[in-house]
Amino acid sequence: MALRVLGIDPGLTRCGIGVIDVAPNREATLVYYGVIRSSSDAEVESRLLSISEGIDAALDQYVPQAVAVERVFAQHNLRTVMGTAQASGIALAAAAKRGLRVGHHTPSEVKAAITGYGSADKKQVATMVTRILRLAAPPTPADAADALALALCHAWRIGSSVTPTGMAAETPAQRAWLDAERVSRRGRPPRA
Amino acid sequence: MALRVLGIDPGLTRCGIGVIDVAPNREATLVYYGVIRSSSDAEVESRLLSISEGIDAALDQYVPQAVAVERVFAQHNLRTVMGTAQASGIALAAAAKRGLRVGHHTPSEVKAAITGYGSADKKQVATMVTRILRLAAPPTPADAADALALALCHAWRIGSSVTPTGMAAETPAQRAWLDAERVSRRGRPPRA
Repeated sequence: MALRVLGIDPGLTRCGIGVIDVAPNREATLVYYGVIRSSSDAEVESRLLSISEGIDAALDQYVPQAVAVERVFAQHNLRTVMGTAQASGIALAAAAKRGLRVGHHTPSEVKAAITGYGSADKKQVATMVTRILRLAAPPTPADAADALALALCHAWRIGSSVTPTGMAAETPAQRAWLDAERVSRRGRPPRA
Repeated sequence: MALRVLGIDPGLTRCGIGVIDVAPNREATLVYYGVIRSSSDAEVESRLLSISEGIDAALDQYVPQAVAVERVFAQHNLRTVMGTAQASGIALAAAAKRGLRVGHHTPSEVKAAITGYGSADKKQVATMVTRILRLAAPPTPADAADALALALCHAWRIGSSVTPTGMAAETPAQRAWLDAERVSRRGRPPRA
């Protein structure tokens, strides 16, 4: 039975949502991706309500078994970090309200998991997400690709801890995944 | 008819809640104060859910007409600011969900409004809150006093903009309030 994971890349202007199903053989399939947008002309409380309603709708519609939310740091981009943190708080409470376990991953952890390189740029991440999920084109905007990458990272980490990892790579996607995992294991950045 | 204002001093370990009624003559009366606590042993998503449920309960029980939430800055105390921002996001969305207008005030604005001095310490704020609300003792913990101060600051600002300010001070509380307002007008810090 597949594990359904919903990834959230929190943000006030664009909040990325990505949903994947991951089979026991680790093959990941796209279920949904998109972004919840809010207008910068609106009051911050109205914007946060839009984000809250969008996250609730995604959780109710796709009924994931696990949720992953990007870990936010205060050091980064002071101008936008507060809105990002506020949106992440809403995402975390929404998941907890449904009794869902939440994985917290830093951008570096996600990049390392998906591309094998913790400093990969957004294009590299989108390219690997496209390959792993066998999509015709990279998901846009980048926030949606990031949310899918986060969901993949989380599914993979859950999988790594509960299943043997000696499995042979059979498809290009699995091969890409296992290759990235090997590189990531060698150079995984410290957890925050 | 009195205006009911609910102030929220957001926090993950202690989230202060203060509710006041303010009469047209500006006399403020305590309705409720308290804190929502969450254990630092719990996962952050569980903690935020506790905060969310506590804020929802306060809004539903006291049915305020206006809400004030302390404005959070990324510059302050990096260790705790993310939890504070996450809690504030939940508070703002909860207010917006009920169609309530939200006032955002910085700690300096609140201190200036309540004590006449933007750098007042917590004890001075608590002392003035005690005096203005005619309480027998200062509200504790400080987070609850801060939430009441925030509610007073907000009620006062709303009042200043919709009613003439030439009113004579009749009670010690009103006198304290008007004195503080005069000082605050002279030395109000810039808005963020």
